[in-house]
Amino acid sequence: MTEFCGPGPIDVSASPLAVLKAQSVVLRDGFWRSRQQSNAEVGLPHGYRMLEQSGNFHNLALAAGRIQGSYKGPLFMDSDLYKWLEAVAFELQREPRASILAMADQAIDLIVAAQASDGYLNTYYQVVEPHNRWKRLGFGHELYCAGHLMQAAVAYFRATGDQRLLDVACKFADHITTVFGPGRLETCCGHPEIETAMIELFRVTRRKAYLEMAGYFIDVRGRRTLVSEHWIFGSDYYQGQVPVREARGVVGHAVRQLYLCAGVTDLFLETGEAALLESQQRLWTDMTAGKMYLTGGVGSRHGTEAFGDEYELPTDTAYCETCAAIASIFWNFRMLLATADSRFADVMETTLYNAFLAGVSLRHDRYFYVNPILSRGGIQRPEWHGCACCPPNVMRLMAALHHYLCTTSGAGIQWHHYAAAKAQTPFATLQMDTTYPWRGDIAITIEHTQSNPWELSLRIPAWCGRATLVINGQAVGLNIRSGYAIITRAWKPGDTVVLTLAMIPQLLTGNPNVESIHHCAAITRGPLVYCVEQADCDGQTRLLDVQIDSSKPLEVQDRPDLLGGVTTIRAAGVVPDRTDWQNRLYQPLKQANILRAVNVVAIPYFAWANRGPGAMRIWIPLA
Amino acid sequence: MTEFCGPGPIDVSASPLAVLKAQSVVLRDGFWRSRQQSNAEVGLPHGYRMLEQSGNFHNLALAAGRIQGSYKGPLFMDSDLYKWLEAVAFELQREPRASILAMADQAIDLIVAAQASDGYLNTYYQVVEPHNRWKRLGFGHELYCAGHLMQAAVAYFRATGDQRLLDVACKFADHITTVFGPGRLETCCGHPEIETAMIELFRVTRRKAYLEMAGYFIDVRGRRTLVSEHWIFGSDYYQGQVPVREARGVVGHAVRQLYLCAGVTDLFLETGEAALLESQQRLWTDMTAGKMYLTGGVGSRHGTEAFGDEYELPTDTAYCETCAAIASIFWNFRMLLATADSRFADVMETTLYNAFLAGVSLRHDRYFYVNPILSRGGIQRPEWHGCACCPPNVMRLMAALHHYLCTTSGAGIQWHHYAAAKAQTPFATLQMDTTYPWRGDIAITIEHTQSNPWELSLRIPAWCGRATLVINGQAVGLNIRSGYAIITRAWKPGDTVVLTLAMIPQLLTGNPNVESIHHCAAITRGPLVYCVEQADCDGQTRLLDVQIDSSKPLEVQDRPDLLGGVTTIRAAGVVPDRTDWQNRLYQPLKQANILRAVNVVAIPYFAWANRGPGAMRIWIPLA
Repeated sequence: MTEFCGPGPIDVSASPLAVLKAQSVVLRDGFWRSRQQSNAEVGLPHGYRMLEQSGNFHNLALAAGRIQGSYKGPLFMDSDLYKWLEAVAFELQREPRASILAMADQAIDLIVAAQASDGYLNTYYQVVEPHNRWKRLGFGHELYCAGHLMQAAVAYFRATGDQRLLDVACKFADHITTVFGPGRLETCCGHPEIETAMIELFRVTRRKAYLEMAGYFIDVRGRRTLVSEHWIFGSDYYQGQVPVREARGVVGHAVRQLYLCAGVTDLFLETGEAALLESQQRLWTDMTAGKMYLTGGVGSRHGTEAFGDEYELPTDTAYCETCAAIASIFWNFRMLLATADSRFADVMETTLYNAFLAGVSLRHDRYFYVNPILSRGGIQRPEWHGCACCPPNVMRLMAALHHYLCTTSGAGIQWHHYAAAKAQTPFATLQMDTTYPWRGDIAITIEHTQSNPWELSLRIPAWCGRATLVINGQAVGLNIRSGYAIITRAWKPGDTVVLTLAMIPQLLTGNPNVESIHHCAAITRGPLVYCVEQADCDGQTRLLDVQIDSSKPLEVQDRPDLLGGVTTIRAAGVVPDRTDWQNRLYQPLKQANILRAVNVVAIPYFAWANRGPGAMRIWIPLA
Repeated sequence: MTEFCGPGPIDVSASPLAVLKAQSVVLRDGFWRSRQQSNAEVGLPHGYRMLEQSGNFHNLALAAGRIQGSYKGPLFMDSDLYKWLEAVAFELQREPRASILAMADQAIDLIVAAQASDGYLNTYYQVVEPHNRWKRLGFGHELYCAGHLMQAAVAYFRATGDQRLLDVACKFADHITTVFGPGRLETCCGHPEIETAMIELFRVTRRKAYLEMAGYFIDVRGRRTLVSEHWIFGSDYYQGQVPVREARGVVGHAVRQLYLCAGVTDLFLETGEAALLESQQRLWTDMTAGKMYLTGGVGSRHGTEAFGDEYELPTDTAYCETCAAIASIFWNFRMLLATADSRFADVMETTLYNAFLAGVSLRHDRYFYVNPILSRGGIQRPEWHGCACCPPNVMRLMAALHHYLCTTSGAGIQWHHYAAAKAQTPFATLQMDTTYPWRGDIAITIEHTQSNPWELSLRIPAWCGRATLVINGQAVGLNIRSGYAIITRAWKPGDTVVLTLAMIPQLLTGNPNVESIHHCAAITRGPLVYCVEQADCDGQTRLLDVQIDSSKPLEVQDRPDLLGGVTTIRAAGVVPDRTDWQNRLYQPLKQANILRAVNVVAIPYFAWANRGPGAMRIWIPLA
């Protein structure tokens, strides 16, 4: 039996911030805990059924030689199961349940049985194309699947101390180090994932070979070692156009790009190599200044599931794959660890509440792959997908959300994401009470604490124009550093801090270079992007005809009865006469007559498409 | 030696209109003749050089066994050469030149030599994959290349009476009829083209087997006999999702869809089967009411080169492949023949002057494949393309343009497209004088005429709000039928008709469902769509910042000095302050300050990108 470090706080040497043990932070009743509960009670069992129906267990049983038959599904099927298992791991850690443990045991048993004696494990190549092992690196997804196995194994070990899956992962990782590298196979995987995964495996095992292997995969990328499959997939599709340290912007397949970014940032976190972080900062600026939707979603192009050019952000054909939002959250969290700069937590938060959360239905039984920013109707979340990368990806992030709330440094505690929660840290035990994202009032109670002074850093979100701070009932000024309000004092048990973030509904407008949203406005409040849906229009109003009157005030209204309880925003709108557009695309410019005034009711974007397949839009034309 | 019908007027049995022999219509000095001259003097020799450099002749020599070596270029290379040869044929008919004839002879000699003894001819499959002959129908382009061979052969025979290429085409067509059909290979080509081509071959040879073969290819389509190559190419990519007669709209790869439409309409023209025409009318309405750019361009999606959903008409990422514009012109001409309805001539005209003509530089030595509707800069026409379908397609349509000007019916002559020209018809010989598209004055002189009364039908374009007619100096009222002003009289030599189409510059707006052009206006005048280019801005103005003031008048100005002589349109514009958008994608809505007023100078869209790679846009934001 191998000896492993951990479970314990992740020690990333070049980071100013340390991640807390997941067990140290618990969500309490509130917005995210209720989603974690649904994820556990509905999502994970639904995932198990769907994996079973789709053949994921069947493929493992084939590879294990336990049954006869044909492989089912696309060649990256294993990764869906691994992501689901990673979600199960986080959930077992959060709230152990025998039913979920039993499902996990069954999966792990099959995985152990399916692994080849040399450590190799990929049911597609074992069952269907054994002669093509490691021969289709550009599009074959072998290392990608291996990476997801490793992430599941690390999570499962950290959550349960059960070492079976970690043994499988290490045996496979050891095999990979004998196959790839200088003088061996000198290439990498067309779909990044192995990079961040092997660094995670290194963090648990402290085996340097895994860190070096990840470093090699990052170094060798962009040196023309991968081959494209078809003319529409240029080398930038898999970030093969240029070495990682020389990249100028995010390009190609969005999930590939952002998983790569997560891996590269992980490598910086372990090595401290400045060129790595500099490249990631360039890419981040490129993404956020020209290639990111208001929701935090990324990916402008169908077909290649890719980033577009700067300002190429169409609404109706937005791709915004749910997995790309998740990948962006992973990357931004690592950038936050690397820099302690709130900009990264801001993008995380936007993406979490909007692009990510829209990927799953309120009941957690249906999942979007593509997330449009405008729907003319007819779009609903399916139960599962032929290419089912997104649903289990939602599950694993949802189950792990409490990991991301706060960190510690030598100086104290940084709170990045507000939620009703309790955190045990080396400095203190804190309780946070809040109804965020519906209200911006955040109350913190210090329960136990070190007697030495330490810093409490509270993120002031970029969306917030006015924040106030009250300590033990006394208003204090804000001392801001890198986007955080810093409070340094000798804390005592029972101390209270109340941070109030003014949550004013706003009308936003888009950069004039973004064609699709010209002369439109979007409603936001706090971290939430709002949308309008056909379901909230009166019977005679076609949603897509409605224009917003920006001169009238926006009104906030709590609607506990609606969509599981949301805060809506009301605006004034008008409906112009559109009868003269029947079957016409273009005609001479004239002023349309206003038919009538209407109420515009906006709901949080994440809650859309839970009331049938009606039209939806985020950007509303200005009257 | 086989005996063929023709050359002579094309007899299409179910058409109310007959196409004139190409020799019967000659363009005189004016807009299109100067383009035909450049096409002949610059385009065709340039094409020859590029085909030579790219390996098109080399591939034929390989197949003919005259040289040793490897095949060059993509698998549909032969079709580029055939299209160029078709262009040469039209040009030889228009204005025979020894230099061009010599180039054609060299090509024909190679083609004859390359043909296999059983009639098969495709250099890629002969040289590279002989074992895959007729095995990759979905993506293999064999029948597609065969179709282009047939079209070239028909044109060459009609133009010159030289039968060598027609013999090759018929031998190949005969072979094809032994390979495909019930009980043989029961499928069709993933890239339509063979359908319209075999019907053309039937029209020249009157061999029913060719018409029946085309009919079979159309009947078998959409019955799941083709296999997709990759998940992003669904069966609608190649119009395989539904049988042709049941299709509800234009879908998938735009060139494939529209070549198919041309073939289906050809089949209607020969058979008169109502279900065929009805399906084409549905598709036409679907295209023009929701999937066509203002330029007549089609294809909204990169990657799959495809039609988008209804109203999916992005500007910066418009695909608008030049070949798709050409395909649309082919189809619309056939629909015009089938219906005598001016709507089809209207779309032809829009497409001809805008989407098509922008595909070639003013000098005819550079060609666009993709035609954006908005460029942020950096886009220029290349000399040639790795996938070089567009340049020789431009050449063949340009050389044949005079074919499309007018038709005859039992009742008289229909003039569809105005140009300085002379036409000899069974009814009369007409001379047309006009500086169209710069002015809307069209003068017709009857030179010889039948003594019996006959109808002269003159199209009143959809863009024209006011048309006047003067016969022999006397104003007469307009008698409109299906979009044509009909003049029936006993004509006499020397009779004159002056049609004046008021050519007022207009500001157009787009259907509010088209997101990318919301709150924008486009300038048009007559058949021309205008655009604005960075080259016409003063030094301190960034084109993409300019907004148009729609309350001010548009001014027409002739500029013989500019871009080979164009009429420009001046508008009033403003430049708002955009400094606060540096590196920001979204921010709270506020009114931007107007920095200054500017003159907006618009040029015809077809002339863009002839002065360097500056920014361009058709749709200008309204101030």
